[in-house]
Amino acid sequence: MVKVSIMYPHTPGLTFDIDYYLQTHMPMSIDRLSAHPGFHGVSVERGVAAPQSGLPPVYVALCHFLFTSADDFVAAFMPHAAALQADIPNYTAIAPVVQFSTVEIAQAR
Amino acid sequence: MVKVSIMYPHTPGLTFDIDYYLQTHMPMSIDRLSAHPGFHGVSVERGVAAPQSGLPPVYVALCHFLFTSADDFVAAFMPHAAALQADIPNYTAIAPVVQFSTVEIAQAR
Repeated sequence: MVKVSIMYPHTPGLTFDIDYYLQTHMPMSIDRLSAHPGFHGVSVERGVAAPQSGLPPVYVALCHFLFTSADDFVAAFMPHAAALQADIPNYTAIAPVVQFSTVEIAQAR
Repeated sequence: MVKVSIMYPHTPGLTFDIDYYLQTHMPMSIDRLSAHPGFHGVSVERGVAAPQSGLPPVYVALCHFLFTSADDFVAAFMPHAAALQADIPNYTAIAPVVQFSTVEIAQAR
């Protein structure tokens, strides 16, 4: 299983419209990417201050898509890349960091 | 639900023993932290090159713990902090990045 993480670094001076991201951008992204048979799940997260230091989070927002393979993600994403990327300026000017990973251990209570 | 992400940046010149991390360190961490009633799950991941650019991953390894609250994570972690942190030099000299987030959308196929 492959996880594709799209993470927006906390950047002083740049804003991030978390409401638009959670209520408009991510539902649109999930609707499009989840149509691919390689889609297995998604998590969308809001960065919060560290509980002890109170320091701001490294990332203000993150999403993680689970796909069977990186090729499946690319195949799911490419037909919608232009539309999804064109929507980014509607919520931020922060350039996202993209991480590809393989899931080695997964456990839930 | 809170996610605590511990992420090791790819750092030229510094090694990361992924086998030790996956086979020894993370099982020990999961064994200890999952005993807390606030534990809900964990994912452990290996960073891989981006499929199209071939660039190395931003993070060589990541783990994500799900807990009911940040306070629950702190309560679960603190009794084991010294032992777990003392084990880090056994697999890397890379300083991890720690991110606290709230899970806003979670969906699985």
